[in-house]
Amino acid sequence: MLRTHTCGELRLKDTNKEVTLAGWVQRVRNKGGLVWVDLRDRYGVTQLIFEEGATQESLLDKAASLGREFVIQAKGIVIERASKNDKMPTGDIEVKTSEVSILNKAKVPPFIIEDETDGGEDLRMKFRYLDLRRPLVRKKLQLRHKMMQETRKYMDGEGFMEVETPVLIKSTPEGARDFVVPSRINPGEFYALPQSPQTFKQLLMVSGFDRYFQIVKCFRDEDLRADRQPEFTQIDCELSFVDQEDILSIFEGLIRHLFREVKGLELGEFERMDYADALRLYGNDKPDIRFDMKFEELNDVAQGKGFKVFDEAELVVGICAKGAATYTRKQLDALTDWVKRPQIGAKGLVYVKCNEDGTYKSTVDKFFDQAALGDWADKMGAVPGDLLLVLSGPTDTVRKQLSELRLKLGEELGLRDKTVYKPLWVLDFPLLEWDDDTQRYHAMHHPFTSPKTEDIDLLDTAPEKVRANAYDLVINGVEIGGGSIRIHDKELQALMFKKLGFTAEEAKAQFGFLMEAFEYGAPPHGGIAFGFDRLCAIFGGSDSIRDYIAFPKNNSGRDVMIDSPSKISNDQLKELSIQLLEKQIKEN
Amino acid sequence: MLRTHTCGELRLKDTNKEVTLAGWVQRVRNKGGLVWVDLRDRYGVTQLIFEEGATQESLLDKAASLGREFVIQAKGIVIERASKNDKMPTGDIEVKTSEVSILNKAKVPPFIIEDETDGGEDLRMKFRYLDLRRPLVRKKLQLRHKMMQETRKYMDGEGFMEVETPVLIKSTPEGARDFVVPSRINPGEFYALPQSPQTFKQLLMVSGFDRYFQIVKCFRDEDLRADRQPEFTQIDCELSFVDQEDILSIFEGLIRHLFREVKGLELGEFERMDYADALRLYGNDKPDIRFDMKFEELNDVAQGKGFKVFDEAELVVGICAKGAATYTRKQLDALTDWVKRPQIGAKGLVYVKCNEDGTYKSTVDKFFDQAALGDWADKMGAVPGDLLLVLSGPTDTVRKQLSELRLKLGEELGLRDKTVYKPLWVLDFPLLEWDDDTQRYHAMHHPFTSPKTEDIDLLDTAPEKVRANAYDLVINGVEIGGGSIRIHDKELQALMFKKLGFTAEEAKAQFGFLMEAFEYGAPPHGGIAFGFDRLCAIFGGSDSIRDYIAFPKNNSGRDVMIDSPSKISNDQLKELSIQLLEKQIKEN
Repeated sequence: MLRTHTCGELRLKDTNKEVTLAGWVQRVRNKGGLVWVDLRDRYGVTQLIFEEGATQESLLDKAASLGREFVIQAKGIVIERASKNDKMPTGDIEVKTSEVSILNKAKVPPFIIEDETDGGEDLRMKFRYLDLRRPLVRKKLQLRHKMMQETRKYMDGEGFMEVETPVLIKSTPEGARDFVVPSRINPGEFYALPQSPQTFKQLLMVSGFDRYFQIVKCFRDEDLRADRQPEFTQIDCELSFVDQEDILSIFEGLIRHLFREVKGLELGEFERMDYADALRLYGNDKPDIRFDMKFEELNDVAQGKGFKVFDEAELVVGICAKGAATYTRKQLDALTDWVKRPQIGAKGLVYVKCNEDGTYKSTVDKFFDQAALGDWADKMGAVPGDLLLVLSGPTDTVRKQLSELRLKLGEELGLRDKTVYKPLWVLDFPLLEWDDDTQRYHAMHHPFTSPKTEDIDLLDTAPEKVRANAYDLVINGVEIGGGSIRIHDKELQALMFKKLGFTAEEAKAQFGFLMEAFEYGAPPHGGIAFGFDRLCAIFGGSDSIRDYIAFPKNNSGRDVMIDSPSKISNDQLKELSIQLLEKQIKEN
Repeated sequence: MLRTHTCGELRLKDTNKEVTLAGWVQRVRNKGGLVWVDLRDRYGVTQLIFEEGATQESLLDKAASLGREFVIQAKGIVIERASKNDKMPTGDIEVKTSEVSILNKAKVPPFIIEDETDGGEDLRMKFRYLDLRRPLVRKKLQLRHKMMQETRKYMDGEGFMEVETPVLIKSTPEGARDFVVPSRINPGEFYALPQSPQTFKQLLMVSGFDRYFQIVKCFRDEDLRADRQPEFTQIDCELSFVDQEDILSIFEGLIRHLFREVKGLELGEFERMDYADALRLYGNDKPDIRFDMKFEELNDVAQGKGFKVFDEAELVVGICAKGAATYTRKQLDALTDWVKRPQIGAKGLVYVKCNEDGTYKSTVDKFFDQAALGDWADKMGAVPGDLLLVLSGPTDTVRKQLSELRLKLGEELGLRDKTVYKPLWVLDFPLLEWDDDTQRYHAMHHPFTSPKTEDIDLLDTAPEKVRANAYDLVINGVEIGGGSIRIHDKELQALMFKKLGFTAEEAKAQFGFLMEAFEYGAPPHGGIAFGFDRLCAIFGGSDSIRDYIAFPKNNSGRDVMIDSPSKISNDQLKELSIQLLEKQIKEN
């Protein structure tokens, strides 16, 4: 070892010990005759002191000449500091240094390697290996490490077997776009990278593995939006001989375990909500229930009073922002502009201020008298000082719009505290959703999701009303996991494919080997998958997953540090029996 | 839960409990009026009993009609067995069944789902999900699960951070062939799948992560030999501020921990051997030291006696097989034929039997009298009853041949006990090896491996003599891991590239961003990687890694279960800006 201790562990009790430390030079302060060097490693920062007289003069010069981010080894005696620094764990001591060797010099880094940095996003991504030196960033990956270990500890304890499923699999036309890999040995043929290990985990249930899990990389060649990565990590799980309740309870246990072990938080029992209620009360299948501000549908009190916008609307719906009657005209105009932006797309915003004197002030005073507005207020449980915000339009649209507005208000009113965690199971998702493009039903989750037994009859008469044994786990308005009980019955599966518009041949072509496997004794089973990157971000109190990934790609799917993807040689292409399209050859 | 207990947990103490079990029908025995059903799940097998009178008649019929591999749920009372079966943990009890429901029927499986099966390799691979039901196979994957958990436990305990490195990286011309992934968003450009996370782990050291590990999939598009997979798993590790001794000690600790926790074996200190000694004494850089039978070089006693074959050979070298003088002429002829096969390629085999009466019987009596053969025997420490086997030829060739013969004899003489484990560190590998094809030196490990300080001067005068700070861990003759201390000094790195025949431009093009990273303060560091599939196979006492992989590929890189790789649509190709070569289009 090139050190006896790390830069994070020395304390007062170590006084007088002879120690050797190694690390990076964080900062050098030269007071003439006295030089201090802050030495940093993964474990912390320790102050080295070089004193005139006490240390040879040449050593003092050497210390003074150390550059930022030089890698050094320093030998000395631990002494008590004259002026202690209670902001750092090693702040009671310093190391009176008698020897220093430069293990490696460093060029001046392109940005400051501290939590507060002057480096922009692009620069930090290009020099990600320097960005990762910043304690703030490193701690996020330490959190991720801890999350992984604790996840495995819990899953192992619950009898789940970790099984690695293949990365080189088969492309299927259903679902999102696959990344593919040309096979050299099988010319003209391609592997695909898995979007999820769905089929393999179901096969493992057919194999009788009973309880499977994996923390696994998945791949989706989608057009990238902010905060979506072409490769991402899932906690993927499947188990047999269970019903939905068992799954909810086991994975509520996982999340509770993680909060306990990683954050020291003891979470109460998780709330549950039907999909239908989530839409009705929050306009959203992943409601943020850290704050209330539920939707109140106002058709009965708001229609028929001559306000055409409301009268013609499918839904009139509002929220009550507690204590927000103090919003100024300017603030309300800003809110109105905000909902009218194309991203939200509302035509306008109706508000009612519940004044402290019991009167109401509204944008639609012309159509609604004080009594009528009082009816709204009663319905919404509003009291003086509250602000009512009302939107109207087609049900689906207006719910989405009001949901956005609710979240924005929650933010503005400080109701979305990042240190508060409110997990919620959303249950009873619809099995199918109608797709206008293809003029057929699509499986909302996937075609192996089982319908609720009591709804099976509806498959013929009202397919859109059939509920699935499917569930999502939402924390603070972010979907972090979802799953379902699968169909294990051949007849029901055949019926499902029919409803999804597959011919028997198409079903066989796409899901043949899984369907064949199901002929040999498939147990009742179900599962769930969690987005691990997002789960880490939630635990870290961050909106972005990117910082929780050691080497993320940018919005064009590029790794700007290693400059990938990149061109490959013609020989390489030829070996793979492929060539670029003519057009591409010209452009390159 | 569809069960109260698993099929592996009921014991005598559970007698009279009402239980519900679920699982697969292993076997049905119908003795008329009495039906037994063996019910199997991952945890074991429990016997169900259906009795006339005691159970309704229709139930008896139902039980008798259950087919192999049907999935059933059975309810009943635990009773003590009349005739116990001490071969199974649940053998003291059976379940007097009162209710049975068929959860899923099964077609007759294509082979018997028991440890002893009638299914051939190909059939079992096509129906891998049924093969995985066999307890023998499942236990191998349970072993793998346990190995993973224990590896992580140890690494976490030693302060290593698990960091996921990217799967979509950049193709580099150096090394083995990459699998590539066309990028749709960046037309004409490709990602590559990692052959190892080598660069990323070194970057993490530059980032100050200090101790990194990962259990990670790696990919190599090589021509497949038996027991080589295009995707395989590594335990990948790197650490900073250490010397070689620290690395050996930490990872000796890992292997010792695994043997203790997974197999209940306490291993002694690992032996160590120089690369040069390994070649000299075993003809092999991964010697199986479970048995001795070391090489003895015989040039001084075997040359100059008129036997031209020996006289003209660069090396005459033999082994002494203890107690093997009983080998018959037929057995010796068979050995001679074996070494003469093209796979080994020896021209012939000289043997000397050390008879019990102190005389010698040899194939080369004509050239060597009893005294001369006595000299051989003395040199090789042979006693009456031993058999000496001698080969000759060019040093490298003859060593390889004799190494194979030694292993074969070890096998024949029962010296390679699969329950005995002898780990060995092989040290001081050469830094460079000469490549006749390209007429230049290649890095034996990789170009970032550091030479031994005391050998650096030899880089100019005798490059082939420079030893590296590189090490392999070998268990029972199988290389299970290897690594090195890396170069962290820019000048030394530049010198290395020069010796490897790179121009500065070539070095920059291939290793640019890593070299750039090294400019910003790289710490001294080193690492190691273990082949996890092979490690599991060794622990399982198996020669083949394939059974330790849930869904392996065959020797053509195909997954015959899902039939992958496969063709993809022209639309898909077009989206990726690629097309098949004309030739391929015609063939398809």
